[in-house]
Amino acid sequence: MHIRPLKLAKDVDLDFFAKQTPGFSGADIANVCNEAALVAARKNKQEVEKQDFLDAIDRIIGGLEKRTKIISAQEKKIIAFHEAGHATVSWMLQYAAPLVKVTIVPRGKSLGAAWYLPEERQITNTDQLLDEITATLGGRAAEDVVFGKISTGALNDLERTTKQAYAMVVYYGLNDKVGNLSYYDSSGQSEYSFNKPYSEKTAETIDQEVHLLVEKAYNRAKEILTAHKDKLEQLANQLLDKEVIFREDLERIFGQRPFEEHTIAENKENISTDERDESFQANITENEDVNYEESDN
Amino acid sequence: MHIRPLKLAKDVDLDFFAKQTPGFSGADIANVCNEAALVAARKNKQEVEKQDFLDAIDRIIGGLEKRTKIISAQEKKIIAFHEAGHATVSWMLQYAAPLVKVTIVPRGKSLGAAWYLPEERQITNTDQLLDEITATLGGRAAEDVVFGKISTGALNDLERTTKQAYAMVVYYGLNDKVGNLSYYDSSGQSEYSFNKPYSEKTAETIDQEVHLLVEKAYNRAKEILTAHKDKLEQLANQLLDKEVIFREDLERIFGQRPFEEHTIAENKENISTDERDESFQANITENEDVNYEESDN
Amino acid sequence: MHIRPLKLAKDVDLDFFAKQTPGFSGADIANVCNEAALVAARKNKQEVEKQDFLDAIDRIIGGLEKRTKIISAQEKKIIAFHEAGHATVSWMLQYAAPLVKVTIVPRGKSLGAAWYLPEERQITNTDQLLDEITATLGGRAAEDVVFGKISTGALNDLERTTKQAYAMVVYYGLNDKVGNLSYYDSSGQSEYSFNKPYSEKTAETIDQEVHLLVEKAYNRAKEILTAHKDKLEQLANQLLDKEVIFREDLERIFGQRPFEEHTIAENKENISTDERDESFQANITENEDVNYEESDN
Amino acid sequence: MHIRPLKLAKDVDLDFFAKQTPGFSGADIANVCNEAALVAARKNKQEVEKQDFLDAIDRIIGGLEKRTKIISAQEKKIIAFHEAGHATVSWMLQYAAPLVKVTIVPRGKSLGAAWYLPEERQITNTDQLLDEITATLGGRAAEDVVFGKISTGALNDLERTTKQAYAMVVYYGLNDKVGNLSYYDSSGQSEYSFNKPYSEKTAETIDQEVHLLVEKAYNRAKEILTAHKDKLEQLANQLLDKEVIFREDLERIFGQRPFEEHTIAENKENISTDERDESFQANITENEDVNYEESDN
Amino acid sequence: MHIRPLKLAKDVDLDFFAKQTPGFSGADIANVCNEAALVAARKNKQEVEKQDFLDAIDRIIGGLEKRTKIISAQEKKIIAFHEAGHATVSWMLQYAAPLVKVTIVPRGKSLGAAWYLPEERQITNTDQLLDEITATLGGRAAEDVVFGKISTGALNDLERTTKQAYAMVVYYGLNDKVGNLSYYDSSGQSEYSFNKPYSEKTAETIDQEVHLLVEKAYNRAKEILTAHKDKLEQLANQLLDKEVIFREDLERIFGQRPFEEHTIAENKENISTDERDESFQANITENEDVNYEESDN
Amino acid sequence: MHIRPLKLAKDVDLDFFAKQTPGFSGADIANVCNEAALVAARKNKQEVEKQDFLDAIDRIIGGLEKRTKIISAQEKKIIAFHEAGHATVSWMLQYAAPLVKVTIVPRGKSLGAAWYLPEERQITNTDQLLDEITATLGGRAAEDVVFGKISTGALNDLERTTKQAYAMVVYYGLNDKVGNLSYYDSSGQSEYSFNKPYSEKTAETIDQEVHLLVEKAYNRAKEILTAHKDKLEQLANQLLDKEVIFREDLERIFGQRPFEEHTIAENKENISTDERDESFQANITENEDVNYEESDN
Repeated sequence: MHIRPLKLAKDVDLDFFAKQTPGFSGADIANVCNEAALVAARKNKQEVEKQDFLDAIDRIIGGLEKRTKIISAQEKKIIAFHEAGHATVSWMLQYAAPLVKVTIVPRGKSLGAAWYLPEERQITNTDQLLDEITATLGGRAAEDVVFGKISTGALNDLERTTKQAYAMVVYYGLNDKVGNLSYYDSSGQSEYSFNKPYSEKTAETIDQEVHLLVEKAYNRAKEILTAHKDKLEQLANQLLDKEVIFREDLERIFGQRPFEEHTIAENKENISTDERDESFQANITENEDVNYEESDN
Repeated sequence: MHIRPLKLAKDVDLDFFAKQTPGFSGADIANVCNEAALVAARKNKQEVEKQDFLDAIDRIIGGLEKRTKIISAQEKKIIAFHEAGHATVSWMLQYAAPLVKVTIVPRGKSLGAAWYLPEERQITNTDQLLDEITATLGGRAAEDVVFGKISTGALNDLERTTKQAYAMVVYYGLNDKVGNLSYYDSSGQSEYSFNKPYSEKTAETIDQEVHLLVEKAYNRAKEILTAHKDKLEQLANQLLDKEVIFREDLERIFGQRPFEEHTIAENKENISTDERDESFQANITENEDVNYEESDN
Repeated sequence: MHIRPLKLAKDVDLDFFAKQTPGFSGADIANVCNEAALVAARKNKQEVEKQDFLDAIDRIIGGLEKRTKIISAQEKKIIAFHEAGHATVSWMLQYAAPLVKVTIVPRGKSLGAAWYLPEERQITNTDQLLDEITATLGGRAAEDVVFGKISTGALNDLERTTKQAYAMVVYYGLNDKVGNLSYYDSSGQSEYSFNKPYSEKTAETIDQEVHLLVEKAYNRAKEILTAHKDKLEQLANQLLDKEVIFREDLERIFGQRPFEEHTIAENKENISTDERDESFQANITENEDVNYEESDN
Repeated sequence: MHIRPLKLAKDVDLDFFAKQTPGFSGADIANVCNEAALVAARKNKQEVEKQDFLDAIDRIIGGLEKRTKIISAQEKKIIAFHEAGHATVSWMLQYAAPLVKVTIVPRGKSLGAAWYLPEERQITNTDQLLDEITATLGGRAAEDVVFGKISTGALNDLERTTKQAYAMVVYYGLNDKVGNLSYYDSSGQSEYSFNKPYSEKTAETIDQEVHLLVEKAYNRAKEILTAHKDKLEQLANQLLDKEVIFREDLERIFGQRPFEEHTIAENKENISTDERDESFQANITENEDVNYEESDN
Repeated sequence: MHIRPLKLAKDVDLDFFAKQTPGFSGADIANVCNEAALVAARKNKQEVEKQDFLDAIDRIIGGLEKRTKIISAQEKKIIAFHEAGHATVSWMLQYAAPLVKVTIVPRGKSLGAAWYLPEERQITNTDQLLDEITATLGGRAAEDVVFGKISTGALNDLERTTKQAYAMVVYYGLNDKVGNLSYYDSSGQSEYSFNKPYSEKTAETIDQEVHLLVEKAYNRAKEILTAHKDKLEQLANQLLDKEVIFREDLERIFGQRPFEEHTIAENKENISTDERDESFQANITENEDVNYEESDN
Repeated sequence: MHIRPLKLAKDVDLDFFAKQTPGFSGADIANVCNEAALVAARKNKQEVEKQDFLDAIDRIIGGLEKRTKIISAQEKKIIAFHEAGHATVSWMLQYAAPLVKVTIVPRGKSLGAAWYLPEERQITNTDQLLDEITATLGGRAAEDVVFGKISTGALNDLERTTKQAYAMVVYYGLNDKVGNLSYYDSSGQSEYSFNKPYSEKTAETIDQEVHLLVEKAYNRAKEILTAHKDKLEQLANQLLDKEVIFREDLERIFGQRPFEEHTIAENKENISTDERDESFQANITENEDVNYEESDN
């Protein structure tokens, strides 16, 4: 409906376009169409072409592209392997969300990103959470396995991982040592509590269990990458070459994914706009309340 | 009185209706009747039927049904066993509150619920509190016993259990190690206290005792479910089949409950509107102050 | 003076009435008389009778009777033994305050109460404090000795006991280990202090000493009750029978109290309105900042 | 000057009067004279007598006498020995301030008091501080030595002692273990510091040293009282007899004090209004932020 | 463009000038030109000379020169070696930023400074961070190696080093013991958290690891300086002689730097105004919230 | 300039006067001159004499003299030795600031003071800080060595010493155990931090190192005083005799100071008004937020 009033170039494949906008609302799609028309107009085109739609989608989600950021060849290579790491690890894990595309085009603070198809899952179990954590650590694990060196670029991944691991142990009662307890406070009263609701000893146990859980997931990510290092490299090289690669490309490298991810997707009548973006983050410099990472001067 | 002015269908059984609304005030009942009339009107019915009343009751209590939530077949099965776990464990425990109905119809954040008849109990002893905690843990215990896997869906149960266990140990003086002490402050002054009123060593003892108490209750729930696994399965299957089952159905499976629960109920002249809802909770996503459980993307 | 203008029934014994209102001010007595007249008027009596005065006194002190609270026979029995426990233990301890009446008529949150004659004592020593703590623990100790089970009903007693024990150790310098030190701050400046004024090690010692002190008092209460179990039972049975019993009844069961409690009372020219009410408390449900004790649903 | 305009009775000894008002300002003295005139007027006297002045002085300093407080004979005895304890210990210690009078007449919250001549001392050393602490503990020590029982009446003494001992260790660098350090902050900035300025380990050392220091002083006070028990008893008996005793009475019991206290006093050109009042405190009941000491009901 | 309207002296080398203003915006350059014109005007010159531009650049960046600060010959020598230490260590480390100039002319609180060419690095790895920390510690290390004495002048360097080391361990997951965890909170919510988000045990591990990391870097700096002590001395002597030395001077002493620093610079299309200034700081005396360093009276 | 318009007595030695006002601004000197004229006028002098200038200088700096404070002969002796201790220790230490005068005339809260010539030092090293701490502890050390007793009069000295020692260890990285770290926060953000930025273990290490550092300095002060006890006594006696002694007097006792203090002073073009005043402090009684030191009543 939103697409009709625009003059479309022949290369616009509505099926492909639909796959790139999972869970978009009508308003979101209208927005993309307007943006695509503007993009085409700026380039003095008579028709709105496929690339204009892709650019528009990217602008809506990731903010306007900033090509002004200078990234050296060596940095580009690290980013490619980092993103390829996410893709490879998540491909090999049964419960990791299905990938949509991987890109090393920088947007905002992000230097690269892996896009996943959001699943509307109502219940999550330990295996699923561990697979997600492992996939999130896949980026840094790839840097480690390939270059033997790790970087500050995984800040975002580590923050997410740390929070998820703490939630498993402290909120969801999914850790054996801490047991079937939840220190989650749905009443919102704990906002005013100036103390941890447990003793230092319990705090120590929680830290240890979170540490074990995350290190185990990290080692699992490294094992997967070591076992599939050749495919990781193919993927990274394609990324360096094309900058954006899609699910089709992944299937060409890895073959059909063995897990029944589509059955869930097909069930869905309604898809949320939630998507995970495993971004490889540039050094933070504008953020003034983090005065530690002044590393790029 | 509130029901008279409405044109009732023949299937409206006032006795059954009364049992579904324990402790409702006059205002609540008026509200249900209005809602039922609206429900019937929306369906262009001439009469208000039994189902309209049931829908109205559900709307008043659980919010409008949201059928838009997608729940996979596997998830539905987990929810059914979780709720059947609450029902089975509470049926087998002398001091657990009597069940009214169990449902796996999602409402709001809840994916399923077990409804209990509220008892106006003035005094509560250790045995009663332990039975309640055990029944609350029955949902997760069923997931554990049947699937060998536990999920994030018990968040609500664990939070309730944790708070009750701490209250036993820290407020009610019901723990041997901590002894006949209460750190409850009825004066409300402790609101401004930024410190725990006891030493770290005492905090540690409290954590250990709460841990032991909860783990013991969890194991007891698992033992009950293992011993009655066949009935648990019958119940879960009926739930998957019918979505809502009532006390009558439970009695058909388990036989008459041996405990004298009705003697207390008969004594009552006045029933409060308090009811317990052991809900199996969907992943929380809207709640912005919990940034840990972003597990469904 | 306040009693004159009212038309009094013959059964009004002014001496008895005076004993029930120790330490009442003139204003309090005027209030009682007005209330008694109202009570009589509501019952369409021509004269104000003894019972009207008793009801009036109770209303002034304990709030209006709420007969709507449902208490089961078993609960009534527990309450009776709890209150009889307070009465028995305090009767047997030299320094416990003299009892005035014991009741199991619920009022407000209280399910029962033991009333004491307030002593205007200027100086309090260790023995007196320990006797008071022991008497306060007498209620729970009776539940323990008679039923082998303890309940949440002692919350109020335990809070009082805990605070008194901490005051002995932390404020009054009455503990050998902590010594002749007082962390009491008469200047009121510590209100703004966010830290305990002592080290964690001292906090630990304080907790241990308070624990020992309270457990010792609790065991002493149990020993007294075990030694006088027959009298405890007589008292509890009379309470179940009559709901309120007075000092005269206690003397019929226990005989004259051997301690010289009256000598102090006789000395007094002026009696304060202070009285202790060892209430057996119903489950707290309205109190919203205590979300732990949701035990009655 | 202030005394002239009043008509004085012959028994008014200006010398004696002067000794009772050490360090009074001109305004204070004018106030006393006015008050004395009022006291005399209330008693319909033609002249202002010695007793009127004494009453006026007491009113200015200790507030109006409240004779309504009931004190039993046993309590009176304890108070007398407590105050006699202060007097005896301070008499025997070289650096304790010289006594002016001792009284067991209650005023405000105070049940008795020992009055000292203020010294304008510019420098205070360890010996002087220890003597003062020992004298302050003399009251409780006397209760302990004579009755074998201690009471809550020393709250005020212990608070003062505790603060002085902490100041020696934490502020004045007068403790060997803590050493030549001062955690005093003259800049007032620590007001906003929410943490102790030292580690838990240091806090522990401080607590231990304060404990040792105070217990040592307490034992010293007990040794002095045991050695002079006969004089302590004479003094207490005189106090019970006369209620107020002066320096002259103390000299009759103990003989001339061997220490050169007057040399300092004679040096003085100007005396401050500072005086120490070692009061034996009644149970605190009005003070609402201390809900621990409800011991007198 | 900005330079045209001014009458330039022959000695103005635009190439040299450009090298001194890396990453300056158009506005910055306009500012420099205006300032240079003013400087020349104040000296009654007809033309704007090279020195006027250099002065203008310094004024824009470091504030107006304050020649009023008295620095003794011995202090001047320490400052020279401190700055030469930064220069020497950073020259010898592959990942330290390239030096632009070193100066011992005091400006504001700074007594000396080393200027670096800012790199727009998007990703930073462990080796790069360690090289930067080592270079930052090079100033103090030089004082240590040459004089065997260290001073308060490294306050600024140590603060920067400490923050960077903590960021590596606590935020960027670059420490083996703490592991792949990040306690960084991008949501900004931790601003209101009054507690460390981890246990004391974890805090201890973090402190130990930061300590090890920094001491290792400090020893590495000392080793580099010991190995190149002769060049360090040449550099310090030139600094004492000329006060400001440029990259050309460094190359004359050390020879061409072996690392491929220019390749990165050449890649750049756009250079930020970020530059690092390793200043040797004078004793802070104006800063009123630091009442510790009153060391110069 | 400021001195011309006044009629000067012949004894006014402008050289001597200049030495007494190091670092005074023009405004300060004008102030002194006005004050001196007033002083002379009050004494009905025709000319302004040397003593008037000295009195004026003292008034400007130390506030008006208060001769009303009573100081006993014994106290005077302690003060004299305390001040002589500062003077002796600082004379013997290479890096202690040069003395200008020592006085035992009380001013404000100060009972005595040692005045130093302020050095404008830009860089401070460990040796200089240790010498300053040792000189600051010289006053108490003298009390200890001479009388074998220490007093509360060193409060001010200890506070200064404690802060300086902590700054060395926590801010300036001058302690081997804590290492090259600085917990100083120049951004001012830590103002809102409610926690120490390091673990308890680190806090413990810091306390131990500060303790060792201060005790070592204290022992060094005592050793110096023991070695020069005869000169200390000469100095104290002169102080008791003359109340104020100047640098010339010190040189008569100790001989020319061996250290090259003047070379620094001569270098200076500009001298700040900063001067250190090691005061021996009277008991604090007015300061209401310090309720510990009520030691003089």
